[in-house]
Amino acid sequence: MKIAVCQFNPIIGDLKYNKQKILEGYEKGIKDKSQLVVFPELSLCGYPPQDLVEKQEFRDAVKQAAEEIASKTKSAGLIFGSITEDYEADVGTGIYNSAVFCYNGKIQLIQNKTLIPNYDVFDEVRYFESAKDVFVSEFCGEKLGISICEDIWNDADYWKKRLYPIDPIKKLLQKGATILINISASPYAYGRRKERYRMLQTLTQNDSIPLVYVCCVGAQTDLIFDGASMCFDKKGRLIKLGKFFDEDYFIYDTENSGEAIETVERSFEEEILDALILGLKDYAAKTGFKKALVGLSGGIDSALVTYIAVQAFGNENVHAVLMPSQYSSEGSIRDSEKLIKNLGISYDNITIQPVVNKIIEALKPAFRNKPEDITEENIQSRVRGIYLMALSNKHGYLLCTTGNKSEMATGYATLYGDMSGAISVIGDVYKTQVYKIASYVNRHKEIIPKEIINKVPSAELRPNQTDQDTLPPYETLDLILKMYLEEYKEYNEIVKVVKDEHVVKKVLRMVDINEFKRKQAPPVLRVTTKAFGYGRRYPIVQGWRR
Amino acid sequence: MKIAVCQFNPIIGDLKYNKQKILEGYEKGIKDKSQLVVFPELSLCGYPPQDLVEKQEFRDAVKQAAEEIASKTKSAGLIFGSITEDYEADVGTGIYNSAVFCYNGKIQLIQNKTLIPNYDVFDEVRYFESAKDVFVSEFCGEKLGISICEDIWNDADYWKKRLYPIDPIKKLLQKGATILINISASPYAYGRRKERYRMLQTLTQNDSIPLVYVCCVGAQTDLIFDGASMCFDKKGRLIKLGKFFDEDYFIYDTENSGEAIETVERSFEEEILDALILGLKDYAAKTGFKKALVGLSGGIDSALVTYIAVQAFGNENVHAVLMPSQYSSEGSIRDSEKLIKNLGISYDNITIQPVVNKIIEALKPAFRNKPEDITEENIQSRVRGIYLMALSNKHGYLLCTTGNKSEMATGYATLYGDMSGAISVIGDVYKTQVYKIASYVNRHKEIIPKEIINKVPSAELRPNQTDQDTLPPYETLDLILKMYLEEYKEYNEIVKVVKDEHVVKKVLRMVDINEFKRKQAPPVLRVTTKAFGYGRRYPIVQGWRR
Repeated sequence: MKIAVCQFNPIIGDLKYNKQKILEGYEKGIKDKSQLVVFPELSLCGYPPQDLVEKQEFRDAVKQAAEEIASKTKSAGLIFGSITEDYEADVGTGIYNSAVFCYNGKIQLIQNKTLIPNYDVFDEVRYFESAKDVFVSEFCGEKLGISICEDIWNDADYWKKRLYPIDPIKKLLQKGATILINISASPYAYGRRKERYRMLQTLTQNDSIPLVYVCCVGAQTDLIFDGASMCFDKKGRLIKLGKFFDEDYFIYDTENSGEAIETVERSFEEEILDALILGLKDYAAKTGFKKALVGLSGGIDSALVTYIAVQAFGNENVHAVLMPSQYSSEGSIRDSEKLIKNLGISYDNITIQPVVNKIIEALKPAFRNKPEDITEENIQSRVRGIYLMALSNKHGYLLCTTGNKSEMATGYATLYGDMSGAISVIGDVYKTQVYKIASYVNRHKEIIPKEIINKVPSAELRPNQTDQDTLPPYETLDLILKMYLEEYKEYNEIVKVVKDEHVVKKVLRMVDINEFKRKQAPPVLRVTTKAFGYGRRYPIVQGWRR
Repeated sequence: MKIAVCQFNPIIGDLKYNKQKILEGYEKGIKDKSQLVVFPELSLCGYPPQDLVEKQEFRDAVKQAAEEIASKTKSAGLIFGSITEDYEADVGTGIYNSAVFCYNGKIQLIQNKTLIPNYDVFDEVRYFESAKDVFVSEFCGEKLGISICEDIWNDADYWKKRLYPIDPIKKLLQKGATILINISASPYAYGRRKERYRMLQTLTQNDSIPLVYVCCVGAQTDLIFDGASMCFDKKGRLIKLGKFFDEDYFIYDTENSGEAIETVERSFEEEILDALILGLKDYAAKTGFKKALVGLSGGIDSALVTYIAVQAFGNENVHAVLMPSQYSSEGSIRDSEKLIKNLGISYDNITIQPVVNKIIEALKPAFRNKPEDITEENIQSRVRGIYLMALSNKHGYLLCTTGNKSEMATGYATLYGDMSGAISVIGDVYKTQVYKIASYVNRHKEIIPKEIINKVPSAELRPNQTDQDTLPPYETLDLILKMYLEEYKEYNEIVKVVKDEHVVKKVLRMVDINEFKRKQAPPVLRVTTKAFGYGRRYPIVQGWRR
């Protein structure tokens, strides 16, 4: 069977746009003589639609759009993802996450999702009921076994411990499926694609069945979808692989297998860069921003974010602001100007000192002669925040937040100061990884000045300050953070590795008590299995300490 | 049976504190000759523990604490809520939300929760498996049917449409239960208590069985629990009712029924005030803040928040800041000073104008001769934000955010400006309700000056500005917002009531496009069935428009 795979970047809620794209893909597939055209999970409404699903008017509009699409189909099959509804349900929401299979002008089958993920960033039980059964569709001499995303992630042969007691794929196979179709929307995290590949390979090989696994692509606020749709033959060989981090369209012919693709992942640095560029680009494109703004401190974080912004917006649409204070080293300004020149972007240089002085002067009586402390540091950061937001408001720039994951984890950042912005670009990238990515950016020529890469990290908010006055060395810090945040390791296990009870306790405590700051942080582009934001839900007020 | 009801305010994660309180309540119950002492849902770890549940070390500590408690029991029974774990589970998390029933030094029964809520603020499917069965415990000549919160909310006699296909209470009755015990943690919203009362009354009356319904009390960040534990006799009469918004302890004797209590709710104003006072007080108590700070604008919102802060912290621990600008009316300062006098609190008066001017001067070249717009208004608000945060940092004040729900809904607020703060006190109270509550505050004598109540609402960020330059009249606005946010009404239904397509469209659009601001807002104390925050999850970037 000739199957057209449409690796699509939907806009959540924009039914008109998504419907149009689905119809265009279908037409293209027909022109290329495909018998079947497949779009990803919830492609009609975008994934994840979140509480839009709870709106009856929205669901009605989705239903109407789905029927309009179906009404335009010819003999070639079309599968797309949509919300569907059982109006007769007397228990539960009656709402389903479905694959809609249509041809000859109407919907032929609605296959509902069986396994409803409800962990990490997934909240699907909030909205969707589980399918009551799975169905095989006879079509063009084949028996299509259609499933949705999570449905394929419960293979008893692959997983040591399963999340769900049932396996809808097994049921499809028992019902005689000859081709598996899985429509998916699985958020990106580095390493996940390889896992996906291995799992799907095991499945297709063991069950001797070809699989078309169609993914969406694009960023939806903080979630990035990497595309990389995969088609396997019945020997478990990967025959087609969709583009990474971009829309794609290709034909897979289950009859004519080709060479096996062995490599599904690139280097960490390359992947993360592409992911973040897509994340930033899509946030802007889907909200209407054309230009970006970055506050350049002279440090590596803001330098990398500026580079990413230039890739996402083009250098003519990125504006930098230098906001030196009395504690800024001369190098900071010089290095920033060098970066600006390398990237070919515009900039302003606006000192904060007179304003900071004026604020401290105004507050003096209310400070009641208390000594200088972190308050004065925060004032500097917040004045910079005011400048950045003012320029964003005045000129319509998207303000990119520049903090990294190590800072966000430990609260080493000022709320309403450097945490200001619409989107946190590298908030899911540890400081040690920021260095690696910056070096990768410079692999052909020096774009991020080596002075920026080599300098001792400092917030430059007081004389001779360095990050390590407050934080452990970044190698140690990031090791602890990764274990704690992503690997679900805890105090005792981490101490076994890091062998410094005091440091481990201190870091874990910093993470725990700074939940209040992260509550008010901008959305963080997610590139690991556990980012700050929607997928990580800690009580702000709580007393659990080691 | 004599049952001691312990309406407890746990601290999430503070196992030592919670364990101590449970043991104290048990001892008190024994002293009062109770045969059974009952604590609320998850009382040992606090509710909702959120992702703490995913930590193995945390769960191990909970298990140990539960066993320690059980080991100290004598012949009197003790029921408390705890996380428990099935280490043998080969599918799913193996983690349960349980009622632990112990006596004679050990755990006698672990009853797991059957119905796992996963809507609004509830995410329990993320953590907990559903009970495989329910059990009746023979104890002191009775058969106890123990259930947990949601388990009791699926009565086919009461609900037209049920959420779940099974009814664990029915099963307990079929197994011969003679007394029902429900341990609960159900967040407050005005009106919910009456619904709870009616539902439990129907249940106990229809099934001729007494019920002990034990609730927790206190605030957990944004969620407020109102207590009001209820004991019904087998005629469906409410015999005991716990205090509202406070810890309580009382004995219910199922053999000696008393007078029926008919009233379970007070006036809206009284209830909301008590709820918000508790919310603010607990946020402070559980995070260690002793003093509060409020920015007083001269408007009704900040006046009401200051009153609430005084109730929560005591007038000696509340500090106000007046931050007039060139657009502040003379009345604003005079009225604020009158309020300050009425409340007996300290204050500072710090002008923002010189700093605002200095900032605009510094930004002038970067503004590139563009005309004045909302940028300059935001700068004023953000300078106030800097002042407030600086005083909070310097003196350790908890900064109370003063915006109301109507503003938060429409985005009529400045991010990093007036939205700054640790907790949004009235962010779930509409402007029209703020007026009602302020009048209620003044019922005996004028505390909030009538000038503040009577003045035309204005942000005072430009000359002669009023809120209604931008927003529809508050009566109309709040009507639309309540229908849209809380009643799940949508465009067509709202237009039928409000009869102004343009206004309805505008308001709904304002709500939808300001999700990005609310993402970065502080937690909002929840007093309605749908507050901004955890229970309302809309995509920030999305294209659904009417």
